[in-house]
Amino acid sequence: MKLSAERENVDPEAVRRGIEDGTIIVLRNRSHSGILPLAIGRGLKTKVNANIGTSKDNADAGAEIEKLLAALRAGADTVMDLSTGGDLAAMRKAVMRESTAPVGTVPIYQAAAGILERGKAIVEMDAEDIFRVIEENGEDGVDFITVHCGVTLASVNSIHAEGRLLGIVSRGGSMTAHWMDYNKRENPLFSDFGRLLEIARRHEIVLSLGDGLRPGCIADATDRGQVHELLLLGELAKRARQQGVQVMIEGPGHVPFADIAANVLLQKQLCDGAPFYVLGPLPTDIAPGHDHITAAIGGAVAGAAGADFLCYVTPSEHLRLPTVEDVRDGVISSRIAAHIADIARGVPDALAKDISMAEARKSFDWEAQIRSAIDPEKAEKMLEKSTSAEGEGCTMCGDLCAIRMGKK
Amino acid sequence: MKLSAERENVDPEAVRRGIEDGTIIVLRNRSHSGILPLAIGRGLKTKVNANIGTSKDNADAGAEIEKLLAALRAGADTVMDLSTGGDLAAMRKAVMRESTAPVGTVPIYQAAAGILERGKAIVEMDAEDIFRVIEENGEDGVDFITVHCGVTLASVNSIHAEGRLLGIVSRGGSMTAHWMDYNKRENPLFSDFGRLLEIARRHEIVLSLGDGLRPGCIADATDRGQVHELLLLGELAKRARQQGVQVMIEGPGHVPFADIAANVLLQKQLCDGAPFYVLGPLPTDIAPGHDHITAAIGGAVAGAAGADFLCYVTPSEHLRLPTVEDVRDGVISSRIAAHIADIARGVPDALAKDISMAEARKSFDWEAQIRSAIDPEKAEKMLEKSTSAEGEGCTMCGDLCAIRMGKK
Repeated sequence: MKLSAERENVDPEAVRRGIEDGTIIVLRNRSHSGILPLAIGRGLKTKVNANIGTSKDNADAGAEIEKLLAALRAGADTVMDLSTGGDLAAMRKAVMRESTAPVGTVPIYQAAAGILERGKAIVEMDAEDIFRVIEENGEDGVDFITVHCGVTLASVNSIHAEGRLLGIVSRGGSMTAHWMDYNKRENPLFSDFGRLLEIARRHEIVLSLGDGLRPGCIADATDRGQVHELLLLGELAKRARQQGVQVMIEGPGHVPFADIAANVLLQKQLCDGAPFYVLGPLPTDIAPGHDHITAAIGGAVAGAAGADFLCYVTPSEHLRLPTVEDVRDGVISSRIAAHIADIARGVPDALAKDISMAEARKSFDWEAQIRSAIDPEKAEKMLEKSTSAEGEGCTMCGDLCAIRMGKK
Repeated sequence: MKLSAERENVDPEAVRRGIEDGTIIVLRNRSHSGILPLAIGRGLKTKVNANIGTSKDNADAGAEIEKLLAALRAGADTVMDLSTGGDLAAMRKAVMRESTAPVGTVPIYQAAAGILERGKAIVEMDAEDIFRVIEENGEDGVDFITVHCGVTLASVNSIHAEGRLLGIVSRGGSMTAHWMDYNKRENPLFSDFGRLLEIARRHEIVLSLGDGLRPGCIADATDRGQVHELLLLGELAKRARQQGVQVMIEGPGHVPFADIAANVLLQKQLCDGAPFYVLGPLPTDIAPGHDHITAAIGGAVAGAAGADFLCYVTPSEHLRLPTVEDVRDGVISSRIAAHIADIARGVPDALAKDISMAEARKSFDWEAQIRSAIDPEKAEKMLEKSTSAEGEGCTMCGDLCAIRMGKK
């Protein structure tokens, strides 16, 4: 707790109080040595997560580790291993070994992959399959897990009753809904939530209560299914705290610009101020190839309204698995959004970085400008061929540089 | 007027009323044939401008024409030729010839370049130099010009009295301030505003009243100098309308996220709802190399709050003249911001595009997804190597695609 407070120059006592009332969580599994604990929540810097992981069509573990390292170099605060292809347990262990940041997973992916490997259908899983994987994740030192506990018979029925353009677009949410439908049984992560809490408490895993019913397009945003699930997550969050288990809440997804702040308010109200982990959000659906930009717009608005943790989106979203370059672009875009939100929320030291940049620009100190940049590598590369012969100004304005005119 | 209304599927009568009360302008110089008139303002789609142009260090006119064409292909609604290097009159004529969209310029650049060529200092210009270039621009068919009429002895004094981290960062603003200081005279574009109106009316040029005193960093935002200039621009806008001259107002620049909506409100109030043309805005200063993303965040917020016209910012801003690729990225980022704002403001037909994309995703119609994209070219390129063997889903989720599970 003290370590995590010092990392961001905030009062450890404020962090302690935040942990106590559930508005702040600290990520670090009891058996995850070698990483610094990371605090997320009220009054703290907005954090950024990068997703990596194999899929069936791209099961190259080495390539995913390369993406992991690129994400960390670009400044991701956490990484999630969302692998669904190849040897998932081996992949997770490799990620745990290589990551200097807290690691999250979605255990149902491994449970599903396991059942498919045994030649069965996902709907044939049983509750033991999922709890066993969660236990394994805890033992491996995973710091936080996404669990779709709010996908229940009742909340899924809210979607069916209302109708939705794009149905369920969360993989974990979709698996769970189909499992319930086939087995005519309640989601075990809901009906046996106590068992989940027991595992989480033992390993000090943070539960990231997943939004398995999030909308998949802005036309579906803030519908009854989404809000029904959020209501349930708020109740489960309360139970988790009472049992000494830390929780955060995952949120959409695809949300029109004008509805983003209301979505944050709703989450904070219904979940007693629990940290909010948003997936984007994307305020338009029509920019595939540039969804890192769309997500940066949504993320800045959500962060300024109080969201605490941004899941990055890469330019590849909706099209393919990201490349290393896409991962890098995704992390940087989300960090820009997070920083803009931090200034808006008055997070300590945020504005000071912008003032340093302005001072460096005033004095034509190009090296200080590069040092002050969120992405020094890219700024330096672009500047290389640019600096004007006279050493002041750049090729944009040449000798008509307004700042240079001002100094003369 | 009718043509411009039809282009966006709005009631021509609403456009007519908007032109009458000054909340809508239509760009097209009387002698600019071959382009469609473009309406900008209340209730209409948010428009995007792309700046191109040579500088002393990069005076290759051919390269700038290539950027112009890239900007138009990417969907820019207008282009501004901001050339300051080489033969500016020839460059402008080439831009007028090649552009299928309305063209804007900043005449003081050419006036300044002319005086430097004659071996004199910019401060040695006289009023005739600038009015002559404006007249020439009108004759060449330029549709809108930036004129820094609000940079006056009094407004510049507001900056000096208060103090500012980065001083004046607008090139035209800086030239004008130094000219006034050296000559101990008022800005002729302010003191002889009537002459400017006469030229504008004769050629049907729209005046873009420039924000020469805009802040150059977020720490300087919304200071007395900026607001003083805006006050003057509001008064000048009123005079212009009384004389039958169309005007829009330029705005910052560098503005913290939390202050953007207030800046739009202030402009609308002080300028009787005149169209607002914002430069970005950038809600942080520390992302050189990615300022197209920063500007997209600021532009979406400004547009949602009522800004009508977004000037793009490229990844090169603050570092160098943009490349063709940078121009493309800048236009696309601004178009994403503009579209997100259009949905927020309920602009007709905006949300329908997102619904088309959602329907294409639901039915795995990859071709329709590409057609529905803001940037079909990039989406197609990213998708090429991606589509999963089974034809449905992509390499992101493979056979765990949530939408496919939902259809089974």
